[in-house]
Amino acid sequence: MSEKQNRAQSESFYEPVRERLARVSASLREMAEKKHPFLAHLLDHTFSTPGKNIRPAITLLGSNFHSHDERITEKMATGVELLHIASLIHDDTVDESSLRRGKLTISSVWGPKAAVLAGDYIFAASATLVCDTGNIRVIRRFAETIMELSSGELQEMSETYSPDQTMEGYLERIYNKTASLFTTAAESGAVLSGASEARAEAMRRYGYNLGMAFQVVDDILDFDGTEEEIGKPIGSDLANGVITLPTLIAMKGKAGRDAVTRTLTHPDEEELLQEAVRVIQDEAILRESYEFANGYCKKALESLAALPSSPSRDSLEELVSHVKVRRN
Amino acid sequence: MSEKQNRAQSESFYEPVRERLARVSASLREMAEKKHPFLAHLLDHTFSTPGKNIRPAITLLGSNFHSHDERITEKMATGVELLHIASLIHDDTVDESSLRRGKLTISSVWGPKAAVLAGDYIFAASATLVCDTGNIRVIRRFAETIMELSSGELQEMSETYSPDQTMEGYLERIYNKTASLFTTAAESGAVLSGASEARAEAMRRYGYNLGMAFQVVDDILDFDGTEEEIGKPIGSDLANGVITLPTLIAMKGKAGRDAVTRTLTHPDEEELLQEAVRVIQDEAILRESYEFANGYCKKALESLAALPSSPSRDSLEELVSHVKVRRN
Repeated sequence: MSEKQNRAQSESFYEPVRERLARVSASLREMAEKKHPFLAHLLDHTFSTPGKNIRPAITLLGSNFHSHDERITEKMATGVELLHIASLIHDDTVDESSLRRGKLTISSVWGPKAAVLAGDYIFAASATLVCDTGNIRVIRRFAETIMELSSGELQEMSETYSPDQTMEGYLERIYNKTASLFTTAAESGAVLSGASEARAEAMRRYGYNLGMAFQVVDDILDFDGTEEEIGKPIGSDLANGVITLPTLIAMKGKAGRDAVTRTLTHPDEEELLQEAVRVIQDEAILRESYEFANGYCKKALESLAALPSSPSRDSLEELVSHVKVRRN
Repeated sequence: MSEKQNRAQSESFYEPVRERLARVSASLREMAEKKHPFLAHLLDHTFSTPGKNIRPAITLLGSNFHSHDERITEKMATGVELLHIASLIHDDTVDESSLRRGKLTISSVWGPKAAVLAGDYIFAASATLVCDTGNIRVIRRFAETIMELSSGELQEMSETYSPDQTMEGYLERIYNKTASLFTTAAESGAVLSGASEARAEAMRRYGYNLGMAFQVVDDILDFDGTEEEIGKPIGSDLANGVITLPTLIAMKGKAGRDAVTRTLTHPDEEELLQEAVRVIQDEAILRESYEFANGYCKKALESLAALPSSPSRDSLEELVSHVKVRRN
């Protein structure tokens, strides 16, 4: 995991914001200082292994088109990463996951109580940082993002093991779960750097489409990746009763619908799961799924046309290719 | 429970804000509309049994000294109550409590995953409402309050079953757990109604001292109340390894220190717990504890001197007496 992280951090799209991201990571680590010892310990555990910082990188890249007070957009980027971390802590707690970024989760070391409270603290800390930007539009959008994140997770939870799912429901869910925060990360960088409404809207569309592509590719890799690439067994979304794009496409045909319904109805029968996974791994189904993701990638690239050519725009473009070909 | 609630809601200190509180309760119920069905169901379950609304009442009473756009302070009051509700949902989840306000908790009906996510959603919804006030000072203070709430709970958790606790640690913990939100509730009502700094500071001090008294009395009643009054067995804080004011006072003497240390070291031995409870229930210890609470009550009343005489000031005074004599 750690090697994979280093590889990801060395991607060239980080280049225009490398120093700024280093300040974001440093400010995360500083959060643990001057706190009650137990809280400091939990924060230190959480922030000592940095993630890939894709979301704060988008905020900073989106802010780089205008000269502005960079401390403000770095606060925002830190808030964006903190929000992501808080949601992971709660996800890992409710899903009883024991590892994250190659390390034991707070929940597995100190129990669910500490993890729920630490997540709450970090959610609130993220909002406090965003308040320091002084921009109410951005602050409100940030709070809405937390609502969308949790409502997306609740939606997924309530639809678990149900075969009656629609494309509209899926798209709403992945927007809430993933693309909402990408949208906020991208738009806030533009708004806080003083971008015009047109450019802020372009970044908003970029973030939305990149986020949708990101989650769709993530969902495809659950069937098309290797266990090593995705860090969990193949087909584990379906094994947990979660229906994603490839499954929805497979269910358009009778064979797919039958196989998926059978495994959802008998979730403990491994053979039924493997049968459904084989049906979904059909080349035409995976191709259609990737084409769907590519539609979002294309729109993300198109939205960048509203921004002037620059190393930061190049990085935003590169990020799209990165999402297209691999899990981040 | 329900009868007790009705009795509490009929207290006369609600009088100057009764209609406004009704609008706050209505806007809570409206939150469940136009949501994903599962989320709507969870919200409806949560908001259909109103609490005692003490915190939003303080916000509204504190705003009543100046004519202003009342929709703004009602949004704030709604946010304050939502924050309180979100923290109760997470508390009940991590403590595995099955009842709240006489009803099954979200966690006991739909499991901890739904409860953690619903709490996150309501935290975020509270922040979104507070953003609608448009006042960054108030919004930031609100986010800090969520940090303080969760850090207070973490502090309590980390000190559980430890006899090495100080008065300073206890006061910091009850400020974070309880008085922080009372402070925010009181100060924000004043600030958003356009009060002078002096009056906002008076309300801030009122909220702080009322909140500290509220928690100290709560902690005393764990030893001095009846099981029916407090809704849980006598001495249950100590049974859970939580040391509060009466225990700290008892531990100043050798007999108390020995009895408390013994029960903390052998938490499963009921007889040791009962022995410690008997030592703490000493009349002089309880008297000293109530005097301590009264010190905060006195300061809360003194801070009201900065406000003009009015029915709302009378209500704020009455609320102090209410906290003094019974659990809210």
